[in-house]
Amino acid sequence: MNIVITGGAGFLGVRLARELLKKQTLALAGGMPQAISRLTLVDRAAPPADLVADSRVRVMEGDLNALLEAGTPAVVAEGTDLVFHLAAAVSGECEADFDLGMRSNLDATRALLQACRGLQAKPTLVFASSLAVFGNSPEQPLPEVVEDTTLPTPQNSYGIQKFIGEQLVADYARKGFIRGRNVRLMTVSVRPGKPNGAASSFLSGMIREPLAGVRAVCPVAPETPVALSSPGHTIDGLIRAAEASDSDWGARTAINLPALKTTAGEMAAALARVAGKDVAALIDWQPDPVIARIVTSWPAQIHAARAERLGLLPEKNFDDIIRAYLSENPYAASQPAG
Amino acid sequence: MNIVITGGAGFLGVRLARELLKKQTLALAGGMPQAISRLTLVDRAAPPADLVADSRVRVMEGDLNALLEAGTPAVVAEGTDLVFHLAAAVSGECEADFDLGMRSNLDATRALLQACRGLQAKPTLVFASSLAVFGNSPEQPLPEVVEDTTLPTPQNSYGIQKFIGEQLVADYARKGFIRGRNVRLMTVSVRPGKPNGAASSFLSGMIREPLAGVRAVCPVAPETPVALSSPGHTIDGLIRAAEASDSDWGARTAINLPALKTTAGEMAAALARVAGKDVAALIDWQPDPVIARIVTSWPAQIHAARAERLGLLPEKNFDDIIRAYLSENPYAASQPAG
Repeated sequence: MNIVITGGAGFLGVRLARELLKKQTLALAGGMPQAISRLTLVDRAAPPADLVADSRVRVMEGDLNALLEAGTPAVVAEGTDLVFHLAAAVSGECEADFDLGMRSNLDATRALLQACRGLQAKPTLVFASSLAVFGNSPEQPLPEVVEDTTLPTPQNSYGIQKFIGEQLVADYARKGFIRGRNVRLMTVSVRPGKPNGAASSFLSGMIREPLAGVRAVCPVAPETPVALSSPGHTIDGLIRAAEASDSDWGARTAINLPALKTTAGEMAAALARVAGKDVAALIDWQPDPVIARIVTSWPAQIHAARAERLGLLPEKNFDDIIRAYLSENPYAASQPAG
Repeated sequence: MNIVITGGAGFLGVRLARELLKKQTLALAGGMPQAISRLTLVDRAAPPADLVADSRVRVMEGDLNALLEAGTPAVVAEGTDLVFHLAAAVSGECEADFDLGMRSNLDATRALLQACRGLQAKPTLVFASSLAVFGNSPEQPLPEVVEDTTLPTPQNSYGIQKFIGEQLVADYARKGFIRGRNVRLMTVSVRPGKPNGAASSFLSGMIREPLAGVRAVCPVAPETPVALSSPGHTIDGLIRAAEASDSDWGARTAINLPALKTTAGEMAAALARVAGKDVAALIDWQPDPVIARIVTSWPAQIHAARAERLGLLPEKNFDDIIRAYLSENPYAASQPAG
């Protein structure tokens, strides 16, 4: 089985790649498990050394639009069975640079779909859409609980571009050009590594940095509700989307992944419980109206009915998410002095 | 006031142009009425002679994408106050030729929005979306009554492209590049003239042709429910969208125009009542599974709450629609022999 991951050197791409290589096989769309023989990682950056060293891994480094335009070597080569399309410009970038977002998120998705359409055998494409398709506004308040069938009303360009991507994936699937799987990812926390340009970046930073003994800013009020999913659950959702049969999957519209409903203040309280009050005291509560406006426009409570039917459930509490982060990133916590 | 109509030589474009020239003024977005000094009609075909002869009318003949790419003369010239974007490839064409639909409906809409964005003063853009964004499918049945907030699940490429257009218009409006008005047109009946490539073409033809003494095919079963609007009400909806203030208009998502709920069989019965049984007997009931599949995937009952708040109401019965057609098209009915 040949698999392509766009954004394959990003945080989720790398984690997905490692998980797939560890699994060794994948049962595509309800079929028999098949050995994963080739994993192509497409990204502007190079993936980590452990992935590059795996004989099954092929690396394509470059801008996705440019690689697709060049055509050779093919991003989606003949014989590709499965594409995870994770590559995207993040929400903050798209809001700051409209044209960049349109190119990175809309044009690239369309070009990738065209490449898939050109294959002799129909590939499966898992599209990583986002919670950001849902936006709250005074003219159109979000319902308290967001369902799979709730009308998305995106309040930023990133959300619009992801929602357009869902429509393209749905129609390419309907036309039989691909097998399509639209999956809306929730805000992922705790992400390891460094802050990125996403408006949601602080939702990892406010946990990750204090654990490493570094001060971190929380730019929203403690009572701000947020819907979160751990990295592990997010990867489970992407793989389940690829493995679900067409009938188990159902409609071509997107499914919401499950999310834990919590608040910035509850996250800080969980950090204090798991790592101590001194660690939680490293959070600086400094409201940023630009970030707060974006984050508070996202839904806080998700009812992921379709995902639940596929066996995907939300985390039970944020304490467990912090503990999972610490066990997966043993060097993340600062060592006691002396 | 300078107004542009894309698709300005089409049936709705011509009717809209005539209505605007007759009105002479327009109160844009709740402002004071202003004289309509310039009306630019953009279309692949030439508009009728009465429009060409009006000193306020400027004609731009050609493919919308090609005209926008050429840039000079500008489709949307500096000083444009209002654009009605009606130009589109119709549903049948888009289903037969996927790439044509993407180019005509998605690329052209995006290029037009970019042209609007380039103006010094923000124009208003009224986007003619469609009932076809709603699609029924076994995996995702439509609710019995479709509301403004119902999640669109298009079942054909035309519907997907229109729904993507709505998203683009909403985001260009949110960014302040345009004032946006997304309006979903219902199936228009009775259209004068000739059949076109739309899957819904028969919903006019089965009335228009028999009235002219010509046999016509109805390709769906008599009990097939349909939601219709007269040409007059449709034009009223487009003009109301331009004239509504931002606060009266509300959310950037699309509004459904009102529609009369009827069936193909009831339409034939109305034709018999208005024009006689002999006329209605000119309808040939010949099921066409391809057309029937598209038409039965559209919703039959619309609750147009936002349009109603703007004072737009559906027709009361189909008999009135036929009578309006006959009064507006005095030569449409065949003359008695002798």
